[in-house]
This record gives sequence, C-alpha cells and structure tokens, in this order.
Amino acid sequence: MSLVVQKFGGTSVADAERMRIVADSVARTVRRGHQVVVAVSAMGKETDELLHLATEVSKVRPGRELDMLITAGERKAMALLCMALHDLGIPADSFTGSQAGILTDTDHTRAKIVEIRPDRIRKALDAGRVPVVGGAQGVSSDKDVTFLGRGGTDTTAVALAHALHADACEIYTDVSGVFTADPRAVPEARRIKRVSFEEMLEMCAAGCPKPAMRSVEFARTYGVPLHVRSAFTWEPGTWIDEEDPEVEQAIVSAVVSDSSQAKLTVTGVPDRPGIAARLFRVLADRSINVDMIEQNVSIHGTTDISFTVAHEDLEAATAVVAELEGDIGATGSTSDPDIATVSIVGAGMKTQPGVTATMFETLAAEGINIEMISTSSIRLTCVVRADVVERAVQSLHRAFELEGV
Amino acid sequence: MSLVVQKFGGTSVADAERMRIVADSVARTVRRGHQVVVAVSAMGKETDELLHLATEVSKVRPGRELDMLITAGERKAMALLCMALHDLGIPADSFTGSQAGILTDTDHTRAKIVEIRPDRIRKALDAGRVPVVGGAQGVSSDKDVTFLGRGGTDTTAVALAHALHADACEIYTDVSGVFTADPRAVPEARRIKRVSFEEMLEMCAAGCPKPAMRSVEFARTYGVPLHVRSAFTWEPGTWIDEEDPEVEQAIVSAVVSDSSQAKLTVTGVPDRPGIAARLFRVLADRSINVDMIEQNVSIHGTTDISFTVAHEDLEAATAVVAELEGDIGATGSTSDPDIATVSIVGAGMKTQPGVTATMFETLAAEGINIEMISTSSIRLTCVVRADVVERAVQSLHRAFELEGV
Repeated sequence: MSLVVQKFGGTSVADAERMRIVADSVARTVRRGHQVVVAVSAMGKETDELLHLATEVSKVRPGRELDMLITAGERKAMALLCMALHDLGIPADSFTGSQAGILTDTDHTRAKIVEIRPDRIRKALDAGRVPVVGGAQGVSSDKDVTFLGRGGTDTTAVALAHALHADACEIYTDVSGVFTADPRAVPEARRIKRVSFEEMLEMCAAGCPKPAMRSVEFARTYGVPLHVRSAFTWEPGTWIDEEDPEVEQAIVSAVVSDSSQAKLTVTGVPDRPGIAARLFRVLADRSINVDMIEQNVSIHGTTDISFTVAHEDLEAATAVVAELEGDIGATGSTSDPDIATVSIVGAGMKTQPGVTATMFETLAAEGINIEMISTSSIRLTCVVRADVVERAVQSLHRAFELEGV
Repeated sequence: MSLVVQKFGGTSVADAERMRIVADSVARTVRRGHQVVVAVSAMGKETDELLHLATEVSKVRPGRELDMLITAGERKAMALLCMALHDLGIPADSFTGSQAGILTDTDHTRAKIVEIRPDRIRKALDAGRVPVVGGAQGVSSDKDVTFLGRGGTDTTAVALAHALHADACEIYTDVSGVFTADPRAVPEARRIKRVSFEEMLEMCAAGCPKPAMRSVEFARTYGVPLHVRSAFTWEPGTWIDEEDPEVEQAIVSAVVSDSSQAKLTVTGVPDRPGIAARLFRVLADRSINVDMIEQNVSIHGTTDISFTVAHEDLEAATAVVAELEGDIGATGSTSDPDIATVSIVGAGMKTQPGVTATMFETLAAEGINIEMISTSSIRLTCVVRADVVERAVQSLHRAFELEGV
C-alpha cells in the first residue's frame, strides 16, 4: 500500500459533473488499496470571480481580507468533493489549510509555508478516511488565513507529500503531462515520460505553463517525485524526479517558447565599469524583473545594452531608461514589444557541444534572425520576432528529432 | 461612547452596491463615536445556491461538509464588507466564527453555542478597528467548522453583544421594524416602538417572521436589548427589551397570522385516559411538531381530537393517524390543509378580561367561523379558514385600534 497526494486544479472541478468525475478517480485509487490525500483548487474561474467582486466593492483591498475572500473558493470545492466521495462510499473529510496544519508567514496574497503539522491529516488517514485539503491556503503566525498565491495548490500538494512522506505527488491538470513542445504549435509533440527537476525548472523559466515553477522547486528541495497527468484520462503522464545517473540523458528534452517578454535597448552607453550596474540597480529598486541581458562588443568606447522585461513592466522600465539616459551618457534608447523567446532544454546538453550550432543553423535555415542569446548549462534561449516564434519551435522540434519515440 | 453590535442580513448585502451602503451605515455609527461590532450573513440567496450546488454534486451530504460549504458564504460577505469599510477610511478586520471565539457543540447544520471567548474581537476594538464577524458560524469541540442554522446570524449578533457587554444589539433587516400587523395585509399597520421579549416571542410563535425566534430567546435569557430596524433608512425601528413595570402595557400590541399549519381531526375516540397521550407520543417519536391541540366535549363516551402540524408534516402525521385509528378505537379521521391561524398578542391582556370577547365578536361580525382556539397569558389564537385570514387580521387590527398613534 502506498500513500499518494493528488492535486486537482480548478478546471478539473469546474462543475458538479467534473467534481463527480474527480471523486470517481480518487475512489478508484483508494479501491486499489492506496492511501490518498487530496489537494483541491477553487472551482473553474471562481478565484477570478471573487477578485472581480472585490474590485466592484472597494478600491482598497487589504491582503488579509483578500486572502479571507479568495480562500472561500477552495473551501467550497473541498466540501463538495468530500460529499461526492461519500456518495461513492468513500469516507472523506475536508480540511482548511489551517486545519491541515499548513503554517505560513504573514505575507498575505503570496504567503510562504514555514512549517507543516499534518496531525489531523494523519489521524484521518489512520482512520481509513480521505483527507481533502483546500489548496493554496494556510494560517499565519498571526492566526490569520493566508493565500499562497496562484498555482499555490501545487505547492500545498507537494508540501503535504513531503510532510507525510508520500510515495508520490500527482498533479492532475487539464494537460495530460509535459510535452516536447506546446501541442497547439507542434501537433507531433510527444509527451515526456520522465524529466529531471532541473530540466523542468529550466522549462518553467523558459515559458512552460504547467506545473507551477514554485511547486517544482519545492519538490526538488524535498525530493518529492511529481507525476503530472490528466484528470480525465487514465494514461500515465510525466514523472518529474531526480536526475537518474544510470540513464543516459536526452540531449534535448523539449522546445519551449515565451511571448510574455518585451525588449529594451539603451544605445551608445559609455563602456565604463558601473554604468550597467547603475541601470539595473534602479530597475531592481522599482521591482522590475529583468530576464535576459546582453551587452554588445564595445565600439569606440561605447556599447548598446539590451534587456528583456515582462510586457506589464515595459512602461515602467521605459520610464527608468528615459530617466537615466542623460545621466549615464547614453545616446538613445528603443523599446520593442514584438519579440518572443524560443528555448531548447536538455540535461544532455552539458556534454554535447554541437547543440548550439544545430540550433543556430536550424533558425538560419528558416531565415529567422536571432536578436539575443542566453544560456544555462542545460538551456539555450534565443530572442526572435514574435511572429516567427511558432515556426522557430516547429523547426527546432524537427531538428532535434523530438517527435521520435 | 457606547458599544453596539450590528447585524446585517443577506438582503442588506445582496450585491456590491448594497454592501457599500451597509459599510456607509456602519461608518456613520463609528464616526458618531461608537464602537461597532458587525455580524453579517451570506450575500443574498447564496446559502440557498450553495445548498443547491451540494444537491447537484451528491446525494450524501454529511453535516460536517455542509457546514464547511455553507460558511463559505459568510466568509465572502465579511471580507468584502471589510474592504468596503477600508474604502471609507474605517479600519476593519473580518473574523470567522472560530476566530471570533464562538465555540459550539458538534450538532452540525444547527449547532448550539456553548461558550464565547471574544479575545480577538476585544483586541480589535481596543485597537480602534471594526471587527466584522461571519454570521451563523462557530467552531465545535472537535475543532470542526459548525453552522448555527438559518437565522443564525441574529444569534451570533446577540451572543457577541452579551459576551462583549454591548449597550445594544441592532438587527438590520429588510423590514423597518416590528409592526402591529403585516403591512402587506394591513396598510395602516403601525411600527411598534417598544415590545417586551415575552410579547415578541409570542408573536414569533404566532407567525411573525422577523426577528428569528431563537435570537429573541437568547436576548431574553441574557437581557440583551434588541433594536430591529432597516438597513436602508435611518429611522428608528422597534426595541425589544424587558417589560418595563413603570409603563402601562398595551392591551393588544399586534395581530399576527400564520398560514403554515394544517389541521387533523381524529373522530369518535373513546374518551378514556391515555388514548390522546398514545397518539401524541407516536407523533413526537416521528419528530412531528404539534402546535395546537383541542379535544371536544365528550358525547356518549367518545370525543374528537383536533391538532395542527406544519404543512410539510401533514403527510407523515396523516400516516400516523391512519396507523393508530383502529388501535385507539377511533371511528375515522380527516385532514384539512386550508386553515390559518390569527393571533392577538399583548402584555396587557393578562389584566383585561374583555379581550377574548372582543376578538370573538369581531370575527363573528365578519361572519368568520372559529374552528379552534388556543391561549397563553398574553396571546389568543384562533384557527379560521385560510381564505378569510387576511380579513380576520384587518378587522381585529381595527377592533383593537392598533392603527392609532
């Protein structure tokens, strides 16, 4: 008998019928003789609806009250899921984050878990019952209800799996696993059977939407194997686990793209120490996250500095640049929202020098210009025009033969 | 400076706009220099909607999970009301029943309050903040979330007023107070300025819908003065308080009607001790509540027994009667759903023998037949045909000159 933590997202419990399908899926696992702990998100788009209601009621929305409001969504879902389980003859009890012993800091709307005391969860399991825990919530050191932020239910699931020494943590979502590329862009994309925490984190950073990056970091830190799969099929999904030294790593595991970034360039910057530092310190002070940074080779003692920020930060970043331009002696600046990044990720890249060349040749053959480049030991990212990124992903997916078994 | 507990029902916070109106009303009281504690119900019909959702999801609905589900409604309302208060510059914190220290028994869906430890509420008040407490909820001795039942927010308000030694408990509702008769039936009905707990309880028992009887009993037990008023007008409503011996009591304070009852009659019952007892014991065992009972004068050793039950219990009660008929040697039985009760209530009746005669004469003058009668020291109730009860109320309201100032 194994202990499994199963996480179900909002789409999986969007209405009464899906709620019953999820209950049936949990019941089957229980009947196969496993112990199950469930972490569930709010139904469908309820979190968004609650936030919208808040904006209708008030311009001032304190974090403490927002958290109290939002967590009502998971509370509904967990109680309903328990009823559906009882309907199938499976005894189940719902638990709020507080009742589940999920203790957090006081940083409302994005609280961090500081400790887990799952006494009531263990008691329920020992009594042969299925504990259903409200996702993304906990109780702070001030005894206030806290919300862990979007994607927080994944974190709840992983945290519980760790605290309960579960054999696995299953993340049920609306996709049937992690793919070699977004199947909407690349029809022949293949589901990845197994990927290492490091690769998954690089994929998340490069724009892979599922699972939530924070939960993967959490899972890696505590060595909790994740199984990402679909709530509506019984086929196995993707296992995310420690890298297995026995197994030869795929050179390239996946091609990921991201269209959420924009590019800024400061031109004719004097090539002196501290100039760039100045710029990025101010950006940091305004809490603008910079992703990629590139500095051209210096010509006649001046250089161009390009960097990318999220679209929603573009305006603020542009203002900072305009502010500092004269100050740092730049000759001008440009901002460009129409870019996208395409990345290849693979643990085997470390030991394969040819990969970079293959990526550049492939994009060149497609007539796709590379505007910026950034690398890690297992990731290679290029900035290209937004309107060609899908073609870039398709050609790279072919070039590295990812569609093959 | 006085401390006031203000209760707002679901209609008062049905949407974002009303929520802001309620916040404004609370803010005005605070600005007049009072300390305010708010107890709020779920928005509009949300409790019904949550219960409906539960029936869609499952046939089995354990009380523990129903309470977890339903209390999500008040949780939303209290958080939103706090935001609206912050918007008006009034610092406010929401508290669940558990956080407010409302400890209950484990009788889910209709839990009883066993103790109140409002430490966090007091702390918030001392800090100059407005505590907004989720109505009708508490935490059980098993550390589970409990629901106090319909009308439970009134109970929460009264219980908090008692525990905090509040100067008054204001029940804001969709009516502007307690009236001498239902204004829909009697346009000239007058709002009652002051009524005693005893009179109010008799009126609740006789069919007056607001306030919830349980909260009035609670208020009487702990001597908490209630002020029933409208959330949408600033006019004073009705005070419910101890009887004031200094003030001469009105002979009749109000005329109340109730169409929720049906009548059963068992005919030709042998007039022997224990026969009636037998019948009502079985009814009690099936938890069928009997309101009025009347036994005719015995003729030739047999008698007819008539009693009233709620419409929803009529079928079950009829079955019981059919079951026992032969057993108790009755000759037959009839059930009659088309009845209604009309009652006059007044503390002064005790000392006024003429009242009964006036009531009977008034109904007789209207050609209204009285089918059953029941009395208490301050209430007189008659069963009449359902289709004439409105006329009965109108004529009695005139006869006792209740429209006068």
